[in-house]
Amino acid sequence: LARLLSAVERGGPEAHEVGRLTYPVGGTAYTVGLTGAPGSGKSTLTAQLIAHLRRQGDEVGVLAVDPSSPFSGGAILGDRVRMQDHALDEGVFIRSMATRGHLGGLALATPEAVRLLDAVGFDWVLIETVGVGQVEVEVAGAADTTVVVVNPGWGDAVQASKAGLLEIADVFVVNKADRPGVEETTRDLRQMLELSDHSRPWLPPIVATVALGGEGIAEAWAAVLAHRAQLEDNGDLIARRESRVAAELVRIVAERLESRAREVCRGEAYEDLRRDVLDRQLDPYSAADEILAWVGSQ
Amino acid sequence: LARLLSAVERGGPEAHEVGRLTYPVGGTAYTVGLTGAPGSGKSTLTAQLIAHLRRQGDEVGVLAVDPSSPFSGGAILGDRVRMQDHALDEGVFIRSMATRGHLGGLALATPEAVRLLDAVGFDWVLIETVGVGQVEVEVAGAADTTVVVVNPGWGDAVQASKAGLLEIADVFVVNKADRPGVEETTRDLRQMLELSDHSRPWLPPIVATVALGGEGIAEAWAAVLAHRAQLEDNGDLIARRESRVAAELVRIVAERLESRAREVCRGEAYEDLRRDVLDRQLDPYSAADEILAWVGSQ
Repeated sequence: LARLLSAVERGGPEAHEVGRLTYPVGGTAYTVGLTGAPGSGKSTLTAQLIAHLRRQGDEVGVLAVDPSSPFSGGAILGDRVRMQDHALDEGVFIRSMATRGHLGGLALATPEAVRLLDAVGFDWVLIETVGVGQVEVEVAGAADTTVVVVNPGWGDAVQASKAGLLEIADVFVVNKADRPGVEETTRDLRQMLELSDHSRPWLPPIVATVALGGEGIAEAWAAVLAHRAQLEDNGDLIARRESRVAAELVRIVAERLESRAREVCRGEAYEDLRRDVLDRQLDPYSAADEILAWVGSQ
Repeated sequence: LARLLSAVERGGPEAHEVGRLTYPVGGTAYTVGLTGAPGSGKSTLTAQLIAHLRRQGDEVGVLAVDPSSPFSGGAILGDRVRMQDHALDEGVFIRSMATRGHLGGLALATPEAVRLLDAVGFDWVLIETVGVGQVEVEVAGAADTTVVVVNPGWGDAVQASKAGLLEIADVFVVNKADRPGVEETTRDLRQMLELSDHSRPWLPPIVATVALGGEGIAEAWAAVLAHRAQLEDNGDLIARRESRVAAELVRIVAERLESRAREVCRGEAYEDLRRDVLDRQLDPYSAADEILAWVGSQ
């Protein structure tokens, strides 16, 4: 499994072969995304949820999604260390995942990795994302249920809203609830949810936890289960999954075209154009038009 | 200027026309990126730097880069409010920027917006990014000098490293330095910079500020100027700008190809394929292969 996941991270023909083999057999695992600002305690919460699920005998695959630094390509595996309690448990598989050259980035590598964990039979796949940027929010939001973790204190709810987390949250967890400000944060979240004026059938519950001490974990998981039940009852689970797959298909096509673009952006004619752009003789958009004429003629 | 920036945010032919007109006349503005975790005080620091530059008579354009929520498309303009001190000053232009439909996203819209501010004659363009995700780090890192803002306290330096900020920082600012832990954070940053083992000619200085009280602002700006002087002396400024423009060119080509992908992903034949994928009769990668055959034949 670890080797197959490495192939998925690298992308390319081997990853696509994994995809071809796993795609027909999946569809039974339920995916839960966990996101929130760095330091909010997502990893501790994830570790506690794993323990909770293991006590029930459920098997859990975990992807700790860690965007490679755009410069070093390296991923820091701190979260993996924090999850080492489960290292010897066969019913748990934890993977700190980066892109390692996958041209489609995390947005494409993650659903492939999820399908692999699904295909090998995990009941649950947890996707924990590090950071609250555009890509991370997108990846965490592409789960069946998305849990957004915030902390007590002024401004945390506003920051979550800024990062686009309000729209993707199915469940809010106010973690580190032994600190002051839980009521204010809960009230802020509730107000912002009401203001956001969604016509969605589900109002995200807000659960207080102290993940480090194991408090509120059962309640947080019950909220996830309640959301799942609602999705299954009204048919939204199938609709959500279908729209995710359709979006992925468009993204794969786009990624393949990007590879073509990279192929075309080399060679002598390209270098001449590039030189003209650097000399400000030609703007980048006009240069792109010329290059695209080459792609079309191939 | 505001209307032209709106055109840039929307992308499309109008934006490209703006690009064609501004590209030949720019090149004199110096760009400074500011990034860091939500709540680190980037906006307050930016407001203070604007005030500092205005006292010297310099003109400043500011882009507060705020990724649209992937779902609502809306940007929350809180930072703009905080910067309203400068609202009536003609030597300052502040814009809270989102993508609003620009297909290339912030990574393409931002350099276009910078060129526009450059072309109309601002001495400095500050680019403040909200959040520390992949896209935000990339956008802030694509400045001439990049300032990374952290706060005192255990773990902040580690979080900055996780988010890939160590690699893009030219100057570190430890803001809110009236709180305990400044020495520890400074020491952590210094250690991590040494560990990162770059052969770069510039070791990022670490400056303590209390942006809210205006402390350390002159020192922070002096660090930016020192970095600029070093880049200009050793020729790296030109090299940096050239590699940015070359990367942008590849990205524009890719974005145009993506538009083609979206065009091809509609119609009856596409719907049939999509249905096969949803029914798990066909995996997304094999479906993409079929679609790409259509793109090639157009």
